[in-house]
Amino acid sequence: METLVIYDIVDDVLRNRIAEACKDYGLQRIQYSAFRGHLNHNRREELEQRLRRLLGRKEGNIQIYPICDKDLRLKREIEGKPPQRGG
Amino acid sequence: METLVIYDIVDDVLRNRIAEACKDYGLQRIQYSAFRGHLNHNRREELEQRLRRLLGRKEGNIQIYPICDKDLRLKREIEGKPPQRGG
Repeated sequence: METLVIYDIVDDVLRNRIAEACKDYGLQRIQYSAFRGHLNHNRREELEQRLRRLLGRKEGNIQIYPICDKDLRLKREIEGKPPQRGG
Repeated sequence: METLVIYDIVDDVLRNRIAEACKDYGLQRIQYSAFRGHLNHNRREELEQRLRRLLGRKEGNIQIYPICDKDLRLKREIEGKPPQRGG
């Protein structure tokens, strides 16, 4: 099932680790702090546990949304110029 | 229908305007760059048009996901300490 992961992590190192975990599970970066891709139920649970261990009691919030095909067809995207960040 | 709005906006002023638009439509901030709340089809389209005008050709990306109740029940949240930002 298509899965959206969004996170709000202040610390750069931790945020990068969260991003790496999402990539390891085959998700694609769709925004600076959002990844999306197909995960079956087991893989989604595995990723959830991994993210839970990474975050621990540190500052942050992570949300995982499975999105069915019907909802995905209703998704809208508004694109300006691609965001550029220094560094 | 429950609606998730996620955005990736580099400019502070523009990002705040996007956030204000989401608030005007009754959405709640769930992360630094994510809002969620109930919108019917018309209100969702209105908000999309407003965000489209705000972003224009400036740097950024906004995605709007309607999420059905079934998907919402599968949502997972991982909470650490609430993110604190300076300023």
